[in-house]
Amino acid sequence: MLDVKNPAPALYRQIYEGIRRAILCGEFNHGMQLPATRLLAKQLGVSRMTVVNAYEQLLAEGYIEGKTGAGTYVAATLPEKMLRVDQDKSFQHGESAKQRNQILSRRGKWLASTSVSTLRVQADTDRYAFQNGLPALDEFPFKVWSQLASRRLRNPPRELLSYGDPAGYLPLRETIAAHLKSARAVHCDADQVIIVAGSQQALDLTARILLDPGDVAWVEDPCYPGAHNALLAAGAKVVPVSVDEEGFDLANALRQSKQARLVYVTPSHQFPLGVTMSLSRRLALLEWAERSGAFVIEDDYNSEYRYSGHPLASLQGLDKDGRVIYVGTFSKTIFPSLRLGCIVAPKDLTGAFIAARALVDRHSPSLDQAILADFINEGHFSRHLRRMRALYAERQQVLVEAAERDLQGLLEVAPAEAGMHLVGWLPERISDKAASAKAARYGVEGSPLSAYSTNPLPRGGLVLGYTAVNAREIKDGVRRLAQALS
Amino acid sequence: MLDVKNPAPALYRQIYEGIRRAILCGEFNHGMQLPATRLLAKQLGVSRMTVVNAYEQLLAEGYIEGKTGAGTYVAATLPEKMLRVDQDKSFQHGESAKQRNQILSRRGKWLASTSVSTLRVQADTDRYAFQNGLPALDEFPFKVWSQLASRRLRNPPRELLSYGDPAGYLPLRETIAAHLKSARAVHCDADQVIIVAGSQQALDLTARILLDPGDVAWVEDPCYPGAHNALLAAGAKVVPVSVDEEGFDLANALRQSKQARLVYVTPSHQFPLGVTMSLSRRLALLEWAERSGAFVIEDDYNSEYRYSGHPLASLQGLDKDGRVIYVGTFSKTIFPSLRLGCIVAPKDLTGAFIAARALVDRHSPSLDQAILADFINEGHFSRHLRRMRALYAERQQVLVEAAERDLQGLLEVAPAEAGMHLVGWLPERISDKAASAKAARYGVEGSPLSAYSTNPLPRGGLVLGYTAVNAREIKDGVRRLAQALS
Repeated sequence: MLDVKNPAPALYRQIYEGIRRAILCGEFNHGMQLPATRLLAKQLGVSRMTVVNAYEQLLAEGYIEGKTGAGTYVAATLPEKMLRVDQDKSFQHGESAKQRNQILSRRGKWLASTSVSTLRVQADTDRYAFQNGLPALDEFPFKVWSQLASRRLRNPPRELLSYGDPAGYLPLRETIAAHLKSARAVHCDADQVIIVAGSQQALDLTARILLDPGDVAWVEDPCYPGAHNALLAAGAKVVPVSVDEEGFDLANALRQSKQARLVYVTPSHQFPLGVTMSLSRRLALLEWAERSGAFVIEDDYNSEYRYSGHPLASLQGLDKDGRVIYVGTFSKTIFPSLRLGCIVAPKDLTGAFIAARALVDRHSPSLDQAILADFINEGHFSRHLRRMRALYAERQQVLVEAAERDLQGLLEVAPAEAGMHLVGWLPERISDKAASAKAARYGVEGSPLSAYSTNPLPRGGLVLGYTAVNAREIKDGVRRLAQALS
Repeated sequence: MLDVKNPAPALYRQIYEGIRRAILCGEFNHGMQLPATRLLAKQLGVSRMTVVNAYEQLLAEGYIEGKTGAGTYVAATLPEKMLRVDQDKSFQHGESAKQRNQILSRRGKWLASTSVSTLRVQADTDRYAFQNGLPALDEFPFKVWSQLASRRLRNPPRELLSYGDPAGYLPLRETIAAHLKSARAVHCDADQVIIVAGSQQALDLTARILLDPGDVAWVEDPCYPGAHNALLAAGAKVVPVSVDEEGFDLANALRQSKQARLVYVTPSHQFPLGVTMSLSRRLALLEWAERSGAFVIEDDYNSEYRYSGHPLASLQGLDKDGRVIYVGTFSKTIFPSLRLGCIVAPKDLTGAFIAARALVDRHSPSLDQAILADFINEGHFSRHLRRMRALYAERQQVLVEAAERDLQGLLEVAPAEAGMHLVGWLPERISDKAASAKAARYGVEGSPLSAYSTNPLPRGGLVLGYTAVNAREIKDGVRRLAQALS
């Protein structure tokens, strides 16, 4: 019955279904006697056992009464209303969807109404210039990954199969703690590292743990929409704070609201502008957070990709009072569909994070965590990152050079020290939304900066991802962009 | 720098760290001149480039000012307060944990305070009688699973690597829709099936979408704690409704509160009592839900394991008005750490579920979903279920027989037609919590029924899982249980 390759239901099941439907639709009235099993079997040309099985099922479920053989009757005890339904309404309530939407909770309406256009992607089957936020998927060492997976899957230990630790697989947490200490100067022990299903879950958990409806949360403006939406969905009053060339500005934030419970920043490489938050701004933000008892989310989403200069240490590493919730992701370094990331929580918040994680979905898949731990521990991760850094630096250069050649006066594309995208600045008074729509008609993606902004920007721009496409595709994309914009 | 196998930081990094710390601790005052790179290199016995690199990093981060070579100084623009910290407080705020807990949101306090003892398990390394809710992990066909995984991982298509559909991998949703139609008489199209990270996420999403704080939710009493806690965490007013031999009783519920927005039931096999909800109770519940605009969660957590009689069709299959949210899990049929389950949502709620899923963590890992789809489609799932049904029936019989022999007068263990555990009923007036604690001292787990109950039960009982342990372990467990209880 469970064989899905052969979904035709068993004969007895067909008979059962037919009678059940007849009863529910009132075609068979209650009290009505059903044909004897022998007779029905003969009529239908099936074995008597098949009919007996169908009747037994109906008996077990209470549709019919009596003993097989001694006369079976449609049960009398079913609520009248259920039996007089003329037709199956199951799939006819489409028209009431709008009305039904009223039944969502306030929270549910938040969730359903926040724009998920940037999150709710359809299955992504084609690559094209200049999709943003995607690594070079075709360059990932799947042979290695597959070998590591085979080794883990051949004879996995019980601890990787049963319910696991909601904080994550301990060896992975240790590995990540060591990595973040050395690569990002993050100050942490493994017990502060909590494995999550990507950075989006980190944002959602943080918002739920720390915010009540109406609490003020500051975000950068322009801002990563996944963060903005997670805070909105938690019912927060989200206050966008314009970013300048030094990143998030506390003084600017304080002019807009005297206080906040939570701040969302991307200090290493602001999304989408790409600026780095200056040290004095960092220290001022931390000092304010300590003084006012607020928390800061540091989304360190692609700090691994730095092409020149030294990587700046994390904001978390400067934090002396446990105010920073550090968020990392493997979506940009391994591949997005793995759905693994991490939180480094202040020590006295780890308990709340772990309890929340257990309650929302228990933990991330253990075997995936173990394979990732092996991948990092055996040196494949740093090797892959080195390769990708070289490749992405090259791709960025191709983009910059092609833009210099083909986009003069149309789009100003300056190189950047880090990241996975560049901002192409449009001439003044050109709408970036219009430019983006035009580019789309030429088969080129360039998200408009204004789509990430609440306050108007001095100048429009297009976000151009260059990591997921090769040199030829970049050059071709630039040519088509030139056609679109000229 | 990213090589975690070799976590000793580079030399330049050690120098950078030392100076940075000295500046932050006020040991190096602002304006102070740093030694020339050549001099410091000589003092430390390192190459000059190493020191230059360290200084450049400090310059980039704003700790020092000036040009290498032309004299470097501790920056003057750092906020005074940050520079006069005498010691690193990072890991000294343990004592303020209680006070800090005040900073959690009301929601965060719910999350942190609901008992997660049944959810927050440590890594589970040993098996023992009579753990509940675990399949026979050692009987799972890992060789097959590993082969399917290899095939998928060797050269995965882009759509399995990039961000995926938040509703889940379409071929898996189609497979599950077909399976649930034939096996559980669930009425659905693939577009109503939403893949989730286990049933816990299904419960959390449903609570968030449909409930606001203070809304009434009915649960069975006794109840699965993961459901009870998910509803509590959503701020619901949870009303436990005592279950009798026909399952959840609407009339009983209405006596306790005139209305509810959501009802949680386990109609196929009540957790933990094991009773099946009768047809008339099912129809009455659906009729009420339709009339009052409420929704019903049907948690069909282990309906696959039925040893005698025919499996009862799902509650969802009787629903004519789109009131039932059907929840299924693969934790009991594949293995728990896979973290895959599904929701079958009423058509007009699918949009809200998908938007919510995208916002809380985007989607489940795509490759895991693809491997599971292959496992089902190629017949391995039904084969494994057939084997497990036979094995578990046998193990149940071993438990019943051993109990008859060794537990006479101590614990009454009756066979059951379905499920993964039996309830052992204690003699009247014996506390099941005391009995459970005593059993634990003899190395036997038997969760007390009262731990799942809000209202007092007429008689105490122990929940005895029999699927994860073999015949020898079951017999041994029963002997030790006899010693504990006598």
